[in-house]
Amino acid sequence: MSWNSTMVTVVGHVASEISYKHGEDGKSNAFFRLHSTERRYNTAIGDWEDGETLWLGVTCWRKLADSVKTTLSQGDPVIVQGKLRMRHYEKDDSKRTAFNLDALHVGLDLSRVQSLGSAPVVEPRSGEELVAETAPF
Amino acid sequence: MSWNSTMVTVVGHVASEISYKHGEDGKSNAFFRLHSTERRYNTAIGDWEDGETLWLGVTCWRKLADSVKTTLSQGDPVIVQGKLRMRHYEKDDSKRTAFNLDALHVGLDLSRVQSLGSAPVVEPRSGEELVAETAPF
Amino acid sequence: MSWNSTMVTVVGHVASEISYKHGEDGKSNAFFRLHSTERRYNTAIGDWEDGETLWLGVTCWRKLADSVKTTLSQGDPVIVQGKLRMRHYEKDDSKRTAFNLDALHVGLDLSRVQSLGSAPVVEPRSGEELVAETAPF
Amino acid sequence: MSWNSTMVTVVGHVASEISYKHGEDGKSNAFFRLHSTERRYNTAIGDWEDGETLWLGVTCWRKLADSVKTTLSQGDPVIVQGKLRMRHYEKDDSKRTAFNLDALHVGLDLSRVQSLGSAPVVEPRSGEELVAETAPF
Repeated sequence: MSWNSTMVTVVGHVASEISYKHGEDGKSNAFFRLHSTERRYNTAIGDWEDGETLWLGVTCWRKLADSVKTTLSQGDPVIVQGKLRMRHYEKDDSKRTAFNLDALHVGLDLSRVQSLGSAPVVEPRSGEELVAETAPF
Repeated sequence: MSWNSTMVTVVGHVASEISYKHGEDGKSNAFFRLHSTERRYNTAIGDWEDGETLWLGVTCWRKLADSVKTTLSQGDPVIVQGKLRMRHYEKDDSKRTAFNLDALHVGLDLSRVQSLGSAPVVEPRSGEELVAETAPF
Repeated sequence: MSWNSTMVTVVGHVASEISYKHGEDGKSNAFFRLHSTERRYNTAIGDWEDGETLWLGVTCWRKLADSVKTTLSQGDPVIVQGKLRMRHYEKDDSKRTAFNLDALHVGLDLSRVQSLGSAPVVEPRSGEELVAETAPF
Repeated sequence: MSWNSTMVTVVGHVASEISYKHGEDGKSNAFFRLHSTERRYNTAIGDWEDGETLWLGVTCWRKLADSVKTTLSQGDPVIVQGKLRMRHYEKDDSKRTAFNLDALHVGLDLSRVQSLGSAPVVEPRSGEELVAETAPF
Protein backbone atom coordinates (compact mmCIF):
# COMPACT_ATOMS: atom_id res chain seq x y z
CA MET A 1 0.00 0.00 0.00
CA SER A 2 2.50 2.47 -1.18
CA TRP A 3 3.52 4.40 -4.22
CA ASN A 4 6.95 4.50 -5.84
CA SER A 5 8.38 1.74 -3.70
CA THR A 6 11.37 0.08 -5.28
CA MET A 7 10.33 -3.54 -5.61
CA VAL A 8 13.06 -5.98 -6.54
CA THR A 9 13.16 -9.67 -7.36
CA VAL A 10 16.46 -11.35 -6.51
CA VAL A 11 17.46 -14.90 -7.42
CA GLY A 12 20.23 -16.29 -5.25
CA HIS A 13 21.19 -18.48 -2.29
CA VAL A 14 20.60 -18.26 1.43
CA ALA A 15 24.11 -17.34 2.61
CA SER A 16 23.79 -17.39 6.40
CA GLU A 17 21.93 -19.09 9.20
CA ILE A 18 18.31 -17.98 9.56
CA SER A 19 18.03 -15.81 12.65
CA TYR A 20 14.57 -15.69 14.16
CA LYS A 21 13.02 -13.77 17.03
CA HIS A 22 9.95 -12.08 18.37
CA GLY A 23 9.93 -8.32 18.33
CA GLU A 24 8.69 -6.15 21.19
CA ASP A 25 5.30 -6.08 19.55
CA GLY A 26 5.14 -9.87 19.59
CA LYS A 27 5.46 -10.18 15.82
CA SER A 28 7.97 -12.72 14.63
CA ASN A 29 10.71 -11.77 12.21
CA ALA A 30 13.44 -13.69 10.44
CA PHE A 31 16.65 -12.48 8.85
CA PHE A 32 19.19 -14.04 6.54
CA ARG A 33 21.85 -12.94 4.09
CA LEU A 34 21.24 -13.53 0.43
CA HIS A 35 23.89 -13.67 -2.22
CA SER A 36 23.29 -13.61 -5.94
CA THR A 37 25.94 -14.20 -8.60
CA GLU A 38 25.22 -13.41 -12.21
CA ARG A 39 26.36 -15.63 -15.05
CA ARG A 40 27.74 -13.78 -18.06
CA TYR A 41 28.40 -14.93 -21.56
CA ASN A 42 31.90 -13.87 -22.55
CA THR A 43 31.79 -13.42 -26.31
CA ALA A 44 35.60 -13.23 -26.45
CA ILE A 45 36.01 -16.80 -25.22
CA GLY A 46 32.60 -18.10 -26.30
CA ASP A 47 31.66 -19.41 -22.88
CA TRP A 48 29.83 -18.55 -19.68
CA GLU A 49 31.58 -17.26 -16.60
CA ASP A 50 30.67 -15.96 -13.16
CA GLY A 51 30.01 -12.26 -12.97
CA GLU A 52 29.63 -10.08 -9.92
CA THR A 53 28.07 -11.09 -6.64
CA LEU A 54 25.45 -9.05 -4.86
CA TRP A 55 24.89 -9.39 -1.10
CA LEU A 56 21.69 -8.25 0.54
CA GLY A 57 20.16 -8.71 3.96
CA VAL A 58 16.62 -10.10 3.85
CA THR A 59 14.04 -9.41 6.56
CA CYS A 60 10.81 -11.42 6.77
CA TRP A 61 7.80 -10.76 8.98
CA ARG A 62 4.99 -12.71 10.64
CA LYS A 63 3.87 -15.83 8.78
CA LEU A 64 6.57 -15.50 6.16
CA ALA A 65 9.15 -15.40 8.97
CA ASP A 66 7.71 -18.59 10.47
CA SER A 67 7.73 -20.45 7.15
CA VAL A 68 11.23 -19.31 6.27
CA LYS A 69 12.51 -20.47 9.66
CA THR A 70 10.86 -23.87 9.23
CA THR A 71 11.83 -24.63 5.65
CA LEU A 72 15.00 -22.85 4.59
CA SER A 73 18.65 -23.50 5.43
CA GLN A 74 21.96 -22.01 4.46
CA GLY A 75 22.76 -22.85 0.86
CA ASP A 76 19.20 -23.19 -0.38
CA PRO A 77 18.43 -21.60 -3.75
CA VAL A 78 15.71 -18.99 -3.37
CA ILE A 79 13.73 -16.38 -5.22
CA VAL A 80 12.89 -13.31 -3.12
CA GLN A 81 10.64 -10.38 -3.93
CA GLY A 82 10.79 -7.40 -1.62
CA LYS A 83 11.17 -3.71 -1.15
CA LEU A 84 14.71 -2.36 -1.39
CA ARG A 85 15.54 -0.30 1.70
CA MET A 86 18.51 1.51 3.18
CA ARG A 87 19.38 0.82 6.77
CA HIS A 88 21.64 3.29 8.60
CA TYR A 89 23.83 2.23 11.47
CA GLU A 90 27.09 3.08 13.23
CA LYS A 91 30.23 0.99 13.33
CA ASP A 92 33.59 2.03 14.72
CA ASP A 93 32.18 5.50 15.31
CA SER A 94 31.37 6.05 11.67
CA LYS A 95 28.07 6.03 9.88
CA ARG A 96 27.37 3.14 7.57
CA THR A 97 24.61 2.16 5.25
CA ALA A 98 23.42 -1.31 4.36
CA PHE A 99 20.89 -2.33 1.75
CA ASN A 100 18.18 -4.76 2.75
CA LEU A 101 15.13 -6.33 1.24
CA ASP A 102 11.90 -6.20 3.19
CA ALA A 103 10.66 -9.50 1.81
CA LEU A 104 7.06 -9.91 0.70
CA HIS A 105 7.45 -13.28 -1.03
CA VAL A 106 10.13 -15.96 -0.70
CA GLY A 107 10.21 -19.31 -2.46
CA LEU A 108 12.60 -22.24 -2.69
CA ASP A 109 13.66 -21.95 -6.34
CA LEU A 110 12.51 -25.10 -8.13
CA SER A 111 14.82 -24.41 -11.09
CA ARG A 112 17.86 -25.04 -8.92
CA VAL A 113 16.97 -27.70 -6.36
CA GLN A 114 19.05 -30.83 -6.76
CA SER A 115 16.32 -33.23 -5.82
CA LEU A 116 13.23 -33.10 -3.70
CA GLY A 117 12.56 -36.05 -1.40
CA SER A 118 8.86 -35.39 -1.48
CA ALA A 119 6.41 -32.67 -2.24
CA PRO A 120 6.06 -30.24 0.63
CA VAL A 121 2.76 -30.70 2.36
CA VAL A 122 0.70 -27.58 1.95
CA GLU A 123 -2.50 -27.73 3.95
CA PRO A 124 -5.10 -26.94 3.11
CA ARG A 125 -4.44 -26.43 -0.54
CA SER A 126 -6.72 -23.77 -1.90
CA GLY A 127 -7.38 -25.79 -5.03
CA GLU A 128 -10.99 -26.62 -4.25
CA GLU A 129 -12.12 -23.07 -4.60
CA LEU A 130 -10.54 -22.86 -8.01
CA VAL A 131 -12.20 -25.85 -9.59
CA ALA A 132 -15.27 -23.98 -10.72
CA GLU A 133 -13.35 -21.14 -12.28
CA THR A 134 -12.83 -21.19 -15.98
CA ALA A 135 -9.80 -19.54 -17.42
CA PRO A 136 -11.07 -16.77 -19.69
CA PHE A 137 -8.78 -17.63 -22.59
CA MET B 1 21.33 -14.07 -22.74
CA SER B 2 19.27 -11.42 -24.31
CA TRP B 3 18.71 -7.71 -24.31
CA ASN B 4 15.45 -5.89 -23.77
CA SER B 5 13.53 -8.98 -22.72
CA THR B 6 10.48 -8.16 -20.67
CA MET B 7 11.08 -9.97 -17.40
CA VAL B 8 8.14 -10.15 -15.03
CA THR B 9 7.62 -11.44 -11.52
CA VAL B 10 4.08 -12.65 -10.82
CA VAL B 11 2.70 -13.68 -7.44
CA GLY B 12 -0.38 -15.88 -7.67
CA HIS B 13 -1.81 -19.40 -7.55
CA VAL B 14 -1.45 -22.46 -9.76
CA ALA B 15 -4.89 -22.48 -11.40
CA SER B 16 -4.84 -25.71 -13.43
CA GLU B 17 -3.41 -29.19 -13.43
CA ILE B 18 0.30 -29.34 -14.32
CA SER B 19 0.63 -30.78 -17.81
CA TYR B 20 3.97 -32.39 -18.49
CA LYS B 21 5.55 -33.93 -21.56
CA HIS B 22 8.72 -34.53 -23.49
CA GLY B 23 9.21 -32.44 -26.59
CA GLU B 24 10.50 -33.81 -29.88
CA ASP B 25 13.99 -32.85 -28.80
CA GLY B 26 13.68 -34.98 -25.66
CA LYS B 27 13.57 -31.97 -23.34
CA SER B 28 10.83 -32.03 -20.76
CA ASN B 29 8.43 -29.16 -20.40
CA ALA B 30 5.60 -28.38 -18.02
CA PHE B 31 2.68 -26.00 -18.38
CA PHE B 32 0.13 -24.59 -15.99
CA ARG B 33 -2.19 -21.63 -15.74
CA LEU B 34 -1.41 -18.98 -13.18
CA HIS B 35 -3.87 -16.51 -11.78
CA SER B 36 -3.02 -13.47 -9.74
CA THR B 37 -5.53 -11.24 -7.98
CA GLU B 38 -4.48 -7.89 -6.61
CA ARG B 39 -5.71 -6.56 -3.28
CA ARG B 40 -6.62 -2.90 -3.27
CA TYR B 41 -7.20 -0.52 -0.43
CA ASN B 42 -10.45 1.33 -1.02
CA THR B 43 -10.00 4.68 0.69
CA ALA B 44 -13.74 5.40 0.36
CA ILE B 45 -14.69 2.50 2.61
CA GLY B 46 -11.42 2.25 4.52
CA ASP B 47 -10.90 -1.41 3.79
CA TRP B 48 -9.20 -3.85 1.44
CA GLU B 49 -10.99 -5.51 -1.44
CA ASP B 50 -10.15 -7.78 -4.36
CA GLY B 51 -9.02 -6.03 -7.48
CA GLU B 52 -8.56 -7.43 -10.95
CA THR B 53 -7.38 -10.91 -11.79
CA LEU B 54 -4.64 -11.62 -14.28
CA TRP B 55 -4.38 -15.01 -16.03
CA LEU B 56 -1.19 -16.16 -17.65
CA GLY B 57 0.04 -19.45 -19.05
CA VAL B 58 3.37 -20.56 -17.58
CA THR B 59 5.83 -22.76 -19.47
CA CYS B 60 8.75 -24.44 -17.68
CA TRP B 61 11.66 -26.30 -19.25
CA ARG B 62 14.04 -29.10 -18.35
CA LYS B 63 14.90 -29.39 -14.65
CA LEU B 64 12.46 -26.68 -13.67
CA ALA B 65 9.72 -28.64 -15.49
CA ASP B 66 10.63 -31.79 -13.57
CA SER B 67 10.60 -30.05 -10.19
CA VAL B 68 7.34 -28.24 -10.90
CA LYS B 69 5.70 -31.52 -11.89
CA THR B 70 6.91 -33.22 -8.71
CA THR B 71 6.11 -30.54 -6.18
CA LEU B 72 3.27 -28.28 -7.29
CA SER B 73 -0.47 -28.86 -7.47
CA GLN B 74 -3.49 -26.82 -8.40
CA GLY B 75 -4.15 -24.19 -5.77
CA ASP B 76 -0.58 -23.80 -4.56
CA PRO B 77 0.62 -20.23 -3.98
CA VAL B 78 3.63 -19.49 -6.15
CA ILE B 79 6.06 -16.78 -7.17
CA VAL B 80 7.13 -16.98 -10.81
CA GLN B 81 9.79 -15.01 -12.64
CA GLY B 82 9.86 -15.30 -16.40
CA LYS B 83 9.92 -13.65 -19.77
CA LEU B 84 6.60 -12.27 -21.01
CA ARG B 85 5.84 -13.63 -24.47
CA MET B 86 3.03 -13.51 -27.01
CA ARG B 87 1.84 -16.77 -28.47
CA HIS B 88 -0.20 -16.66 -31.70
CA TYR B 89 -2.71 -19.33 -32.57
CA GLU B 90 -5.94 -19.91 -34.45
CA LYS B 91 -9.31 -20.73 -32.98
CA ASP B 92 -12.61 -20.90 -34.84
CA ASP B 93 -10.82 -19.70 -37.95
CA SER B 94 -9.70 -16.46 -36.35
CA LYS B 95 -6.30 -15.40 -35.13
CA ARG B 96 -5.83 -15.15 -31.41
CA THR B 97 -3.06 -14.09 -29.12
CA ALA B 98 -2.26 -15.38 -25.66
CA PHE B 99 0.28 -14.08 -23.19
CA ASN B 100 2.58 -16.57 -21.53
CA LEU B 101 5.51 -16.55 -19.18
CA ASP B 102 8.58 -18.51 -20.13
CA ALA B 103 9.48 -19.30 -16.54
CA LEU B 104 13.06 -19.08 -15.34
CA HIS B 105 12.37 -19.39 -11.62
CA VAL B 106 9.36 -20.79 -9.74
CA GLY B 107 8.97 -21.12 -6.00
CA LEU B 108 6.25 -22.21 -3.60
CA ASP B 109 5.49 -18.88 -1.91
CA LEU B 110 6.33 -19.25 1.78
CA SER B 111 4.35 -16.12 2.68
CA ARG B 112 1.10 -17.86 1.78
CA VAL B 113 1.46 -21.54 2.64
CA GLN B 114 -0.97 -22.59 5.35
CA SER B 115 1.36 -25.05 7.00
CA LEU B 116 4.28 -27.13 5.92
CA GLY B 117 4.38 -30.72 7.13
CA SER B 118 8.13 -30.77 6.91
CA ALA B 119 10.97 -28.99 5.27
CA PRO B 120 11.41 -30.10 1.69
CA VAL B 121 14.48 -32.25 1.35
CA VAL B 122 16.97 -30.49 -0.85
CA GLU B 123 19.99 -32.65 -1.58
CA PRO B 124 22.74 -31.89 -1.58
CA ARG B 125 22.41 -28.46 -0.06
CA SER B 126 25.15 -26.22 -1.31
CA GLY B 127 25.72 -24.76 2.14
CA GLU B 128 29.13 -26.30 2.70
CA GLU B 129 30.79 -24.22 0.06
CA LEU B 130 29.44 -21.07 1.62
CA VAL B 131 30.74 -21.58 5.14
CA ALA B 132 34.09 -19.97 4.49
CA GLU B 133 32.67 -16.94 2.77
CA THR B 134 32.35 -13.79 4.75
CA ALA B 135 29.71 -11.30 3.88
CA PRO B 136 31.50 -8.08 2.93
CA PHE B 137 29.32 -5.82 5.05
CA MET C 1 -2.07 1.47 -3.42
CA SER C 2 -2.50 -2.18 -3.95
CA TRP C 3 -1.01 -5.51 -3.08
CA ASN C 4 0.15 -8.18 -5.49
CA SER C 5 -0.22 -6.00 -8.56
CA THR C 6 1.91 -7.21 -11.43
CA MET C 7 4.17 -4.25 -12.17
CA VAL C 8 6.15 -4.46 -15.37
CA THR C 9 8.83 -2.31 -16.98
CA VAL C 10 8.87 -2.49 -20.78
CA VAL C 11 11.50 -0.98 -23.05
CA GLY C 12 10.30 -0.46 -26.63
CA HIS C 13 8.95 1.96 -29.22
CA VAL C 14 5.69 3.87 -29.59
CA ALA C 15 4.08 1.90 -32.43
CA SER C 16 0.93 3.89 -33.18
CA GLU C 17 -0.46 7.40 -33.13
CA ILE C 18 -1.22 8.68 -29.64
CA SER C 19 -4.99 8.79 -29.19
CA TYR C 20 -6.17 11.25 -26.61
CA LYS C 21 -9.55 12.08 -25.14
CA HIS C 22 -11.46 13.21 -22.11
CA GLY C 23 -13.44 10.54 -20.32
CA GLU C 24 -16.98 11.04 -19.04
CA ASP C 25 -15.51 12.05 -15.70
CA GLY C 26 -13.52 14.83 -17.36
CA LYS C 27 -10.17 13.09 -16.78
CA SER C 28 -7.90 12.98 -19.79
CA ASN C 29 -6.47 9.69 -21.00
CA ALA C 30 -4.06 8.72 -23.75
CA PHE C 31 -3.50 5.41 -25.47
CA PHE C 32 -0.81 4.04 -27.73
CA ARG C 33 0.55 0.70 -28.83
CA LEU C 34 3.98 -0.27 -27.64
CA HIS C 35 6.20 -2.85 -29.25
CA SER C 36 9.33 -4.30 -27.76
CA THR C 37 11.77 -6.55 -29.57
CA GLU C 38 14.40 -8.42 -27.66
CA ARG C 39 17.97 -8.82 -28.94
CA ARG C 40 19.44 -12.26 -28.45
CA TYR C 41 23.00 -13.46 -28.65
CA ASN C 42 23.11 -16.54 -30.84
CA THR C 43 26.03 -18.57 -29.56
CA ALA C 44 25.91 -20.82 -32.64
CA ILE C 45 26.77 -17.99 -35.00
CA GLY C 46 28.50 -15.74 -32.45
CA ASP C 47 26.37 -12.72 -33.16
CA TRP C 48 23.29 -10.82 -32.03
CA GLU C 49 19.92 -11.20 -33.72
CA ASP C 50 16.36 -9.99 -33.23
CA GLY C 51 14.25 -12.16 -30.96
CA GLU C 52 10.52 -12.06 -30.40
CA THR C 53 8.37 -8.97 -30.41
CA LEU C 54 5.87 -8.14 -27.71
CA TRP C 55 2.91 -5.84 -28.38
CA LEU C 56 1.04 -4.16 -25.57
CA GLY C 57 -1.53 -1.40 -25.38
CA VAL C 58 -0.55 1.41 -23.01
CA THR C 59 -3.09 3.59 -21.21
CA CYS C 60 -2.06 6.82 -19.50
CA TRP C 61 -4.17 9.03 -17.24
CA ARG C 62 -4.41 12.68 -16.26
CA LYS C 63 -1.12 14.60 -16.26
CA LEU C 64 0.80 11.68 -17.69
CA ALA C 65 -1.73 11.55 -20.56
CA ASP C 66 -1.23 15.26 -21.24
CA SER C 67 2.57 14.99 -21.26
CA VAL C 68 2.55 11.89 -23.44
CA LYS C 69 0.27 13.61 -25.96
CA THR C 70 2.53 16.68 -26.07
CA THR C 71 5.90 15.02 -26.29
CA LEU C 72 5.72 11.57 -27.86
CA SER C 73 5.21 10.47 -31.46
CA GLN C 74 5.10 7.18 -33.31
CA GLY C 75 8.55 5.66 -33.45
CA ASP C 76 9.92 7.23 -30.28
CA PRO C 77 11.93 4.93 -28.00
CA VAL C 78 10.34 4.74 -24.56
CA ILE C 79 10.58 3.10 -21.18
CA VAL C 80 7.20 2.39 -19.57
CA GLN C 81 6.41 1.16 -16.08
CA GLY C 82 2.86 0.07 -15.41
CA LYS C 83 0.46 -2.49 -14.12
CA LEU C 84 -0.21 -5.46 -16.40
CA ARG C 85 -3.95 -5.88 -16.94
CA MET C 86 -6.28 -8.03 -18.98
CA ARG C 87 -8.97 -6.33 -20.97
CA HIS C 88 -11.92 -8.41 -22.20
CA TYR C 89 -13.88 -7.49 -25.32
CA GLU C 90 -15.93 -9.03 -28.10
CA LYS C 91 -15.01 -9.15 -31.74
CA ASP C 92 -16.87 -11.03 -34.48
CA ASP C 93 -19.16 -12.45 -31.78
CA SER C 94 -16.36 -14.13 -29.92
CA LYS C 95 -14.70 -13.19 -26.66
CA ARG C 96 -11.20 -11.85 -26.85
CA THR C 97 -8.60 -10.79 -24.35
CA ALA C 98 -5.95 -8.13 -24.76
CA PHE C 99 -3.10 -7.30 -22.42
CA ASN C 100 -2.54 -3.68 -21.55
CA LEU C 101 -0.31 -1.66 -19.31
CA ASP C 102 -1.88 0.91 -17.03
CA ALA C 103 1.09 3.22 -17.18
CA LEU C 104 2.39 4.93 -14.06
CA HIS C 105 5.64 6.25 -15.52
CA VAL C 106 6.70 6.86 -19.11
CA GLY C 107 9.97 8.35 -20.31
CA LEU C 108 11.64 9.02 -23.64
CA ASP C 109 14.51 6.52 -23.47
CA LEU C 110 17.75 8.50 -23.52
CA SER C 111 19.77 5.39 -24.36
CA ARG C 112 18.15 5.21 -27.79
CA VAL C 113 17.45 8.76 -28.97
CA GLN C 114 19.39 9.61 -32.11
CA SER C 115 19.97 13.22 -31.21
CA LEU C 116 18.23 15.78 -29.09
CA GLY C 117 17.86 19.26 -30.54
CA SER C 118 17.79 20.76 -27.09
CA ALA C 119 17.12 19.83 -23.53
CA PRO C 120 13.41 19.65 -22.84
CA VAL C 121 12.33 22.60 -20.75
CA VAL C 122 11.08 21.35 -17.42
CA GLU C 123 9.63 24.18 -15.36
CA PRO C 124 10.05 24.64 -12.58
CA ARG C 125 12.80 22.16 -11.89
CA SER C 126 12.60 20.95 -8.36
CA GLY C 127 16.37 21.22 -7.94
CA GLU C 128 16.34 24.10 -5.48
CA GLU C 129 14.77 22.08 -2.74
CA LEU C 130 17.44 19.44 -3.09
CA VAL C 131 20.48 21.67 -2.74
CA ALA C 132 20.59 21.48 1.01
CA GLU C 133 20.24 17.72 1.15
CA THR C 134 23.36 15.70 1.64
CA ALA C 135 23.52 12.22 0.29
CA PRO C 136 23.97 9.93 3.30
CA PHE C 137 26.83 7.95 1.77
CA MET D 1 23.85 -10.78 -21.95
CA SER D 2 23.82 -12.29 -18.58
CA TRP D 3 21.85 -14.60 -16.39
CA ASN D 4 20.51 -13.89 -12.92
CA SER D 5 21.39 -10.22 -13.02
CA THR D 6 19.34 -8.20 -10.57
CA MET D 7 17.53 -5.70 -12.78
CA VAL D 8 15.76 -2.89 -10.98
CA THR D 9 13.51 -0.05 -12.08
CA VAL D 10 13.70 3.01 -9.84
CA VAL D 11 11.45 6.06 -10.04
CA GLY D 12 12.95 9.15 -8.42
CA HIS D 13 14.78 12.44 -8.92
CA VAL D 14 18.27 13.36 -10.08
CA ALA D 15 19.82 14.46 -6.77
CA SER D 16 23.25 15.74 -7.79
CA GLU D 17 25.06 17.42 -10.66
CA ILE D 18 25.73 15.11 -13.61
CA SER D 19 29.43 14.31 -13.68
CA TYR D 20 30.75 13.35 -17.08
CA LYS D 21 34.10 12.14 -18.35
CA HIS D 22 35.93 9.98 -20.82
CA GLY D 23 37.42 6.79 -19.46
CA GLU D 24 40.88 5.53 -20.35
CA ASP D 25 39.32 3.51 -23.13
CA GLY D 26 37.81 6.65 -24.62
CA LYS D 27 34.26 5.65 -23.73
CA SER D 28 32.18 8.37 -22.13
CA ASN D 29 30.45 7.80 -18.84
CA ALA D 30 28.14 9.87 -16.68
CA PHE D 31 27.27 9.59 -13.01
CA PHE D 32 24.61 11.09 -10.80
CA ARG D 33 22.89 10.37 -7.52
CA LEU D 34 19.29 9.29 -7.59
CA HIS D 35 16.89 9.54 -4.71
CA SER D 36 13.50 7.91 -4.54
CA THR D 37 10.91 8.51 -1.83
CA GLU D 38 7.92 6.27 -1.50
CA ARG D 39 4.44 7.58 -0.71
CA ARG D 40 2.50 5.50 1.78
CA TYR D 41 -1.16 5.47 2.63
CA ASN D 42 -1.51 5.65 6.40
CA THR D 43 -4.76 3.87 7.19
CA ALA D 44 -4.70 5.20 10.77
CA ILE D 45 -5.01 8.80 9.63
CA GLY D 46 -6.62 8.13 6.26
CA ASP D 47 -4.07 10.07 4.26
CA TRP D 48 -0.86 9.76 2.27
CA GLU D 49 2.53 10.52 3.76
CA ASP D 50 6.18 10.28 2.73
CA GLY D 51 7.84 6.98 3.42
CA GLU D 52 11.51 6.09 3.29
CA THR D 53 14.03 7.49 0.87
CA LEU D 54 16.42 5.35 -1.12
CA TRP D 55 19.71 6.77 -2.46
CA LEU D 56 21.56 5.09 -5.28
CA GLY D 57 24.44 6.09 -7.51
CA VAL D 58 23.69 5.77 -11.22
CA THR D 59 26.36 5.12 -13.85
CA CYS D 60 25.62 5.56 -17.57
CA TRP D 61 27.83 4.61 -20.50
CA ARG D 62 28.45 5.72 -24.07
CA LYS D 63 25.44 7.18 -25.88
CA LEU D 64 23.27 7.05 -22.80
CA ALA D 65 25.95 9.03 -20.94
CA ASP D 66 26.00 11.67 -23.69
CA SER D 67 22.22 12.04 -23.72
CA VAL D 68 21.98 12.17 -19.94
CA LYS D 69 24.64 14.90 -19.83
CA THR D 70 22.80 16.93 -22.49
CA THR D 71 19.27 16.66 -21.21
CA LEU D 72 19.12 16.08 -17.46
CA SER D 73 19.73 18.42 -14.53
CA GLN D 74 19.54 18.15 -10.77
CA GLY D 75 15.94 17.91 -9.66
CA ASP D 76 14.56 16.28 -12.81
CA PRO D 77 12.12 13.42 -12.28
CA VAL D 78 13.44 10.26 -13.90
CA ILE D 79 12.76 6.58 -14.40
CA VAL D 80 15.90 4.43 -14.45
CA GLN D 81 16.29 0.76 -15.29
CA GLY D 82 19.60 -0.84 -14.50
CA LYS D 83 21.57 -3.61 -12.92
CA LEU D 84 22.01 -3.40 -9.15
CA ARG D 85 25.69 -3.65 -8.25
CA MET D 86 27.87 -3.42 -5.17
CA ARG D 87 30.89 -1.19 -5.31
CA HIS D 88 33.60 -1.70 -2.71
CA TYR D 89 35.87 1.13 -1.61
CA GLU D 90 37.91 2.37 1.33
CA LYS D 91 37.23 5.45 3.40
CA ASP D 92 39.01 6.45 6.60
CA ASP D 93 40.94 3.17 6.46
CA SER D 94 37.82 1.06 6.61
CA LYS D 95 36.08 -0.91 3.92
CA ARG D 96 32.79 0.41 2.66
CA THR D 97 30.19 -0.75 0.24
CA ALA D 98 27.94 1.37 -1.93
CA PHE D 99 25.07 0.24 -4.11
CA ASN D 100 24.90 1.55 -7.64
CA LEU D 101 22.79 1.06 -10.72
CA ASP D 102 24.53 0.35 -14.00
CA ALA D 103 21.88 2.10 -16.04
CA LEU D 104 20.60 0.59 -19.28
CA HIS D 105 17.66 2.93 -19.80
CA VAL D 106 16.94 6.40 -18.40
CA GLY D 107 13.97 8.62 -19.21
CA LEU D 108 12.64 11.97 -18.04
CA ASP D 109 9.46 10.84 -16.27
CA LEU D 110 6.51 12.37 -18.12
CA SER D 111 4.16 11.65 -15.22
CA ARG D 112 5.99 14.20 -13.07
CA VAL D 113 7.22 17.01 -15.34
CA GLN D 114 5.64 20.33 -14.46
CA SER D 115 5.43 21.58 -18.01
CA LEU D 116 7.32 20.99 -21.20
CA GLY D 117 8.21 24.03 -23.29
CA SER D 118 8.24 21.95 -26.44
CA ALA D 119 8.56 18.38 -27.55
CA PRO D 120 12.17 17.23 -27.53
CA VAL D 121 13.46 16.91 -31.06
CA VAL D 122 14.31 13.31 -31.75
CA GLU D 123 15.95 12.90 -35.14
CA PRO D 124 15.43 10.88 -37.07
CA ARG D 125 12.35 9.33 -35.57
CA SER D 126 12.13 5.70 -36.45
CA GLY D 127 8.42 5.97 -37.16
CA GLU D 128 8.66 5.49 -40.91
CA GLU D 129 9.73 1.92 -40.61
CA LEU D 130 6.78 1.15 -38.40
CA VAL D 131 4.03 2.50 -40.62
CA ALA D 132 3.60 -0.70 -42.55
CA GLU D 133 3.43 -2.90 -39.48
CA THR D 134 0.04 -3.94 -38.27
CA ALA D 135 -0.47 -4.64 -34.64
CA PRO D 136 -1.43 -8.31 -34.36
CA PHE D 137 -4.37 -7.70 -32.05
